[in-house]
Amino acid sequence: MKLATFTVGTEQLVGAVDGNEIVVIDVPDMRTLFALGTPVKEQAEKRLTSRRFKLADVKLCAPIQPKKIFHTAGNYAEHAHEGDRSNWVAAIKPWIVFFQNVDAVIGPEDPVVYPEHLTKCLDYELELCVVLAKPGKFFTEKEASDYIGGYVIFNDITARDIQRREMESANFCFSKSIDTFCPFGPWIVTPDEIPDPYNLNLELRVNGEKRQISNSSHMSVTIPQLLSKFSPLGYNAGDILTTGTVSGVAAFSADPEAWYLKPGDVMEAEIEKIGVLRNKVISWKDAYGVDAPAWQGF
Amino acid sequence: MKLATFTVGTEQLVGAVDGNEIVVIDVPDMRTLFALGTPVKEQAEKRLTSRRFKLADVKLCAPIQPKKIFHTAGNYAEHAHEGDRSNWVAAIKPWIVFFQNVDAVIGPEDPVVYPEHLTKCLDYELELCVVLAKPGKFFTEKEASDYIGGYVIFNDITARDIQRREMESANFCFSKSIDTFCPFGPWIVTPDEIPDPYNLNLELRVNGEKRQISNSSHMSVTIPQLLSKFSPLGYNAGDILTTGTVSGVAAFSADPEAWYLKPGDVMEAEIEKIGVLRNKVISWKDAYGVDAPAWQGF
Repeated sequence: MKLATFTVGTEQLVGAVDGNEIVVIDVPDMRTLFALGTPVKEQAEKRLTSRRFKLADVKLCAPIQPKKIFHTAGNYAEHAHEGDRSNWVAAIKPWIVFFQNVDAVIGPEDPVVYPEHLTKCLDYELELCVVLAKPGKFFTEKEASDYIGGYVIFNDITARDIQRREMESANFCFSKSIDTFCPFGPWIVTPDEIPDPYNLNLELRVNGEKRQISNSSHMSVTIPQLLSKFSPLGYNAGDILTTGTVSGVAAFSADPEAWYLKPGDVMEAEIEKIGVLRNKVISWKDAYGVDAPAWQGF
Repeated sequence: MKLATFTVGTEQLVGAVDGNEIVVIDVPDMRTLFALGTPVKEQAEKRLTSRRFKLADVKLCAPIQPKKIFHTAGNYAEHAHEGDRSNWVAAIKPWIVFFQNVDAVIGPEDPVVYPEHLTKCLDYELELCVVLAKPGKFFTEKEASDYIGGYVIFNDITARDIQRREMESANFCFSKSIDTFCPFGPWIVTPDEIPDPYNLNLELRVNGEKRQISNSSHMSVTIPQLLSKFSPLGYNAGDILTTGTVSGVAAFSADPEAWYLKPGDVMEAEIEKIGVLRNKVISWKDAYGVDAPAWQGF
């Protein structure tokens, strides 16, 4: 089942995608649906209504507004290797985790606003994410499978110049958490449709040009390992955990300046069996109608 | 005004501390009070009721459950210097920011549970925090004063052995975000009672022994600078921003092994004009009735 949050007119609704239509589920929002208990597919089926819309007639939103987003990194050796080759600030090892900015979440087709006063090196990072099926903490790897409630695509927008400066103090967060930097979507796919999450093609395109091309089989850890490892921080139903990006980011490319994002660029983050998350980068002026503030670096 | 969240019987209430009594404010919770508009003191005064309890008869809770906690660091040169002297993993420079685990928040007198399977180096860090008066993003240092809605004490519990390992990948979060690692309290003091936040004595004691002794005048940045700098991440009314710790942590002391926290230790984090935040460290067995899981390191 593909679970989406969408607006039609002034209403925000939750629904199940059915071909080129969407069927309304009778819940106030996606977090409430996830809080009803597992499996989420059954909870959704019980609440399907007779209201249907054509997908073309609705505006998809971020599928969920999670309480917490666990941003993990270092789980693809190929991304660590491209970092090493580019003399990146530090090794990109497994078990990196930090909390994302829940207010920076945007949905499919929503614009990423380029903060031109803060960065000149805007990058993309395609990531497969897990949506937590239920609350829990301090659980084992063996127990962890029960916590997988769905999969969704995340594009981890990153200001690399800021990240470099943050990492001088051995931390980073701001560079990945600026307003509109967290596109999620296009919908949440329940686990019955993805029995093997380690065999999914991953591809990120900028203006149609393929930049990241990989497969989730390259992941060096398992999703239950990640979920268990970070469980001392505690999960809520509907929380999101990202699983790290693959090679092909602009910063580690042969020509970073050419590959960094610019206003007008269109990103398509695609994961097999989930779909495509499409977002355009727009200038500060296009977003706010005024020029960006004076350069502030970081 | 001192704004507290407390329980009496099965009820959770918000109130204003009045000497050794507490007067109930008619709001469902503290975040709702902060969302009503500024100044929060006036909003609270309008909703004071005739219900009163003796402070001794209630259980204080964490004064607010924020949507986001901005954990900042590097704002006291004295803490950076003690880090340098101890050959810490990286320089502790200003402008470190990351999001804290909102589910790890505990209140006054709540126990910090020692996760004995994860760490052997548990440390404390006294911090003055600001509570956000209103939502906002991308604002200037000059505008920032209007966003200060109150002050509260935070004790940043840290597993140093985990933090060292995290910092090898130039990040840290897990080590400070484990369940129960975020004691806040004892209440929120509105800014009218603290016209000068840069002249407050700070003291953290363990079993009565003074460990951290400093003054907020040693801060190397201003609170409006911090608020403005991190405003591209966006604030909600009632969000919390920590302002960094002072010297005297166990990890950088002459005898870290002797100073690291142990089950049974009582921490008192005191800030002038706010009060004392007191929390005991308890063993896994005392918390859960069973031995801690087998050692997992990190």
